[in-house]
Amino acid sequence: MTVWTDTLKQRIEAARGKRPVDLLFKNCQIVDVFAGVLQETEVAVFDGQIVGFGERPAREEVDLAGAILCPGLIDGHLHLESSMLHPAEFARAVLPHGTTSVVADPHEIANVAGLPGVQFMLEATEDIGLDVFFMAPSCVPASHLESSGARLDGNDLQSLQQFSRIIGLGEVMNFPGVIEGDAEIMDKIQRFCGKVVDGHAPGLSGAGLDAYLSAGIGSDHECTRLAEAKEKLSKGMFIMIREGSQARDLENLAPLVTVRNERRCMLVSDDCHPEELATRGHMDSMVSRAMNLGIEPMMAIRMATRNPAEYFGLRRLGAIAPGCQADMLVLTTLQPFHIDRVYKAGKLVAAAGGCLLEMVVKTAGLPVTMKLSAVRLEDLRIECRGQWLRVIRLIPGSLITGEDIVRVVERNGEAVSDPQNDLLKVAVFERHHGSGRRGLGFVHGFGLRSGALASTVAHDSHNLVVVGADDADMVTAVNSLRELGGGLAVADRGKVIATLPLPLAGLMSTASLQEVVAGNSKVNEAAAALGATVEHPFMALSFLALPVIPRLKITDYGLVDGEQLAQVPLFVDDAPVRE
Amino acid sequence: MTVWTDTLKQRIEAARGKRPVDLLFKNCQIVDVFAGVLQETEVAVFDGQIVGFGERPAREEVDLAGAILCPGLIDGHLHLESSMLHPAEFARAVLPHGTTSVVADPHEIANVAGLPGVQFMLEATEDIGLDVFFMAPSCVPASHLESSGARLDGNDLQSLQQFSRIIGLGEVMNFPGVIEGDAEIMDKIQRFCGKVVDGHAPGLSGAGLDAYLSAGIGSDHECTRLAEAKEKLSKGMFIMIREGSQARDLENLAPLVTVRNERRCMLVSDDCHPEELATRGHMDSMVSRAMNLGIEPMMAIRMATRNPAEYFGLRRLGAIAPGCQADMLVLTTLQPFHIDRVYKAGKLVAAAGGCLLEMVVKTAGLPVTMKLSAVRLEDLRIECRGQWLRVIRLIPGSLITGEDIVRVVERNGEAVSDPQNDLLKVAVFERHHGSGRRGLGFVHGFGLRSGALASTVAHDSHNLVVVGADDADMVTAVNSLRELGGGLAVADRGKVIATLPLPLAGLMSTASLQEVVAGNSKVNEAAAALGATVEHPFMALSFLALPVIPRLKITDYGLVDGEQLAQVPLFVDDAPVRE
Repeated sequence: MTVWTDTLKQRIEAARGKRPVDLLFKNCQIVDVFAGVLQETEVAVFDGQIVGFGERPAREEVDLAGAILCPGLIDGHLHLESSMLHPAEFARAVLPHGTTSVVADPHEIANVAGLPGVQFMLEATEDIGLDVFFMAPSCVPASHLESSGARLDGNDLQSLQQFSRIIGLGEVMNFPGVIEGDAEIMDKIQRFCGKVVDGHAPGLSGAGLDAYLSAGIGSDHECTRLAEAKEKLSKGMFIMIREGSQARDLENLAPLVTVRNERRCMLVSDDCHPEELATRGHMDSMVSRAMNLGIEPMMAIRMATRNPAEYFGLRRLGAIAPGCQADMLVLTTLQPFHIDRVYKAGKLVAAAGGCLLEMVVKTAGLPVTMKLSAVRLEDLRIECRGQWLRVIRLIPGSLITGEDIVRVVERNGEAVSDPQNDLLKVAVFERHHGSGRRGLGFVHGFGLRSGALASTVAHDSHNLVVVGADDADMVTAVNSLRELGGGLAVADRGKVIATLPLPLAGLMSTASLQEVVAGNSKVNEAAAALGATVEHPFMALSFLALPVIPRLKITDYGLVDGEQLAQVPLFVDDAPVRE
Repeated sequence: MTVWTDTLKQRIEAARGKRPVDLLFKNCQIVDVFAGVLQETEVAVFDGQIVGFGERPAREEVDLAGAILCPGLIDGHLHLESSMLHPAEFARAVLPHGTTSVVADPHEIANVAGLPGVQFMLEATEDIGLDVFFMAPSCVPASHLESSGARLDGNDLQSLQQFSRIIGLGEVMNFPGVIEGDAEIMDKIQRFCGKVVDGHAPGLSGAGLDAYLSAGIGSDHECTRLAEAKEKLSKGMFIMIREGSQARDLENLAPLVTVRNERRCMLVSDDCHPEELATRGHMDSMVSRAMNLGIEPMMAIRMATRNPAEYFGLRRLGAIAPGCQADMLVLTTLQPFHIDRVYKAGKLVAAAGGCLLEMVVKTAGLPVTMKLSAVRLEDLRIECRGQWLRVIRLIPGSLITGEDIVRVVERNGEAVSDPQNDLLKVAVFERHHGSGRRGLGFVHGFGLRSGALASTVAHDSHNLVVVGADDADMVTAVNSLRELGGGLAVADRGKVIATLPLPLAGLMSTASLQEVVAGNSKVNEAAAALGATVEHPFMALSFLALPVIPRLKITDYGLVDGEQLAQVPLFVDDAPVRE
């Protein structure tokens, strides 16, 4: 039995010139990532693939008038959910910016919806004009300090390997677990033996790093300092230089890249918020920035094309050469890196900054993820059990929080908010299983004088987190999200005054990028109008519930000490010691 | 169920310093192939793997007194059979030369013994102190113009993928078949979709090369000219620069290698004869030669370490870093590349040029491959059927032959040899199936005045080829090899005067490298004593039967025109036209 296809036979005939190719690009130079030079040649495309260099019969000739053809850009590490967009809309947002492939870790949706969530992402990324590969999310749940929507064990992750677009194991954030030989995480890693296993080890060095690498971890995207990146590179980690919405490391790490080690480096976004996509772009802006920081253009481009392709074993991507997929950008100039047109698998998908694809949002297959019973005022009641409170203190621009000890403000036996002193109530409602579990506490630093903000984007388990000056407004905000199936909401004086619905797992919208950006502006403006002083109040809110970051956080189990990784009580016996 | 092992747990503990490592190398610099620099650090080894850099508790400290630790060298393309050694003895021969891993194409033995031959090679390469990976041989038989011992179809090749050390499809020599869309070769390629597929396309360029690459071919080791290599590199082929016994391309191709494309280049031997191993060495001499030709040391080393590891996806090889196998060379100097000691998986296996491993030759499992009935004088009889003969003309130092048309020398109705005019009889006996089929002809250029030379090394099908001044000596030589189970033999005046037994498929010896070199010298000296004028008479003999090379060759089917790829008759009607 012969399994080879007519498709391949026709491709070979087209390569030989025995059959007209679909497209012949003329009068151009190509970015030759193999030789590391620009090269003048015609490029022939047939059936979505590059089939040869040089003249041959073509159904259509494209005269590029001296422009440059560059391979499509690859984002080697990102969480699609951060864009708040359905993957198909994400594709429409990034294609004009030259991104033709991404490697996504569906960590967020997996924490909400488990395997069905990952399967939804697989289905939602079919035929969207962007190649989306996935890493199986290794840390679901991310910790035992909160209730996730699902748990993925070794068997679950192994079952994902049946899908050809699941190409490895996602960032192993539980690096302490690896170093301590935790059986569950080690089991997951070993099941991906021989495949790519991404790392995540901020600040890890020396023997701890050695131990982590001995388990077979291949990359890191958490380097922030040059010395850290140098050590990790020399120890064999592929360095993913992150330049995204949540962290910008390129300026610090650009001096890492030399002509001798560039092959071990790539550019990634990790997280891309909708505003970032609307204003800065995506991989194109990273490549530009790398060039502006002194990395030579050919190297900057390889860090966003061939290098990720090689790390992930995506042989047919990241280059313009016979046998490769015809993902190509037409550049008017190399530096500045200016993209005029984008071809994906030989099809023109973007021109002059706009995407030519229709928006088609498929939502079938996603389970209901909002399983919260209606919340009542008494659910927020905090019975007074002492004189002193442990209060979370926001630190502007940081995921890290502080801890304050302040005197309780009591009313009718309840500990209550005191907006005049910026003491606001904060609550996390478990929203995945209908358990009714909730954690209650207080926070300093939001600045709300009235009303409440609620969000179902709350790393890593994405329960519902709400902060407010007024309990009734908190209830209103929470219940509005319950009805929307998730999102961001602002309530004041008994009314919902702004929302951004995120019905896809409480994380993503079904609307366009423009609508999501507008909705985001609306909720942020509403928060500001209520007195919010923190720059990105919903982002601050979303990280209040992330218990693995120092120092004081809150989950549906209550307050958590992010250093000790243990629950701590809200009430404290003694007054703070003044130092 | 947890599948992770205590081994890994212990390795991590050792990396952390919680358990003593086996070896700690001190006072050394390492060749850091990732950063492309030398770096001072201690290297800790546990359970055969590098587990970390820097001091930690160790059961044994190795003071390297300022020496350099270099990753073990990898030969990315070779045919073990060319060494005439059992793989275990090959390992003993190359380990002192720094070769710790090879990727072998068992093309020769597969043509003789089929799948059982490949399985024999898999078994014979277990635990021999050298990591041997295999490419499934794609061209068995190599052509339809001769009788091979076996045929491997797509299903056979797919069945080999069950073995973890079969890592791809071996050199696709049938490039005309690919270009023409031949169903059988395309089927084989498609069954290895997503795996490494090696190429072999001497001189192929332009649209033909494009067509070949459109099928997914990844490498080429047949470049002899710089321009050829540049085109192939830019079109995405990994360039295997060959520097072996049969072809030395490094001098021509060294100018190809730049700091920007070196990652796409590697050094390979393709074929390594026993004399080469005994006198020049193996990968060490290639690295030295590359340096001497102006390639900077770090790049020359990467071309023999990390680059092949990355091309073949051998993540744990080709580097000194935590998580990598502890294959390391102790260099007294980087340039000249002088190896003092070799560690394989943390074990000292060679020192001061000698191998420390015992010779253990396992021959179990290899089927009987010599199925030739005893040959008689009348088997060599050529009945005279015309006045003129088509005669093969050897061209010294070339695989290519010429064709002469000469007048028949007749005796009793037979066409016979005429040693005084260097007209010798040549015959190929099918030896795999006992068919009795034989091809008969004449050859110019050997120079034998009496006696006969016979060989079972006869590319690509390795039938038995014999040349002689005297039919009776030819019979004697052939029957001696029949009894030995294969090898090289010289007969004269009715007696066997020298042999090199190659009982393993008629291709490989069970003796030591020294014995094989001595045996080879003996048969070559005996041939010279009989008047042989060609420099390597047995090598010339072994390629007389390779029908795919111009111009006139001989197989068990008779004379073959290597340009037309068709059989041609021995007798010609007309006298040659004098030009």
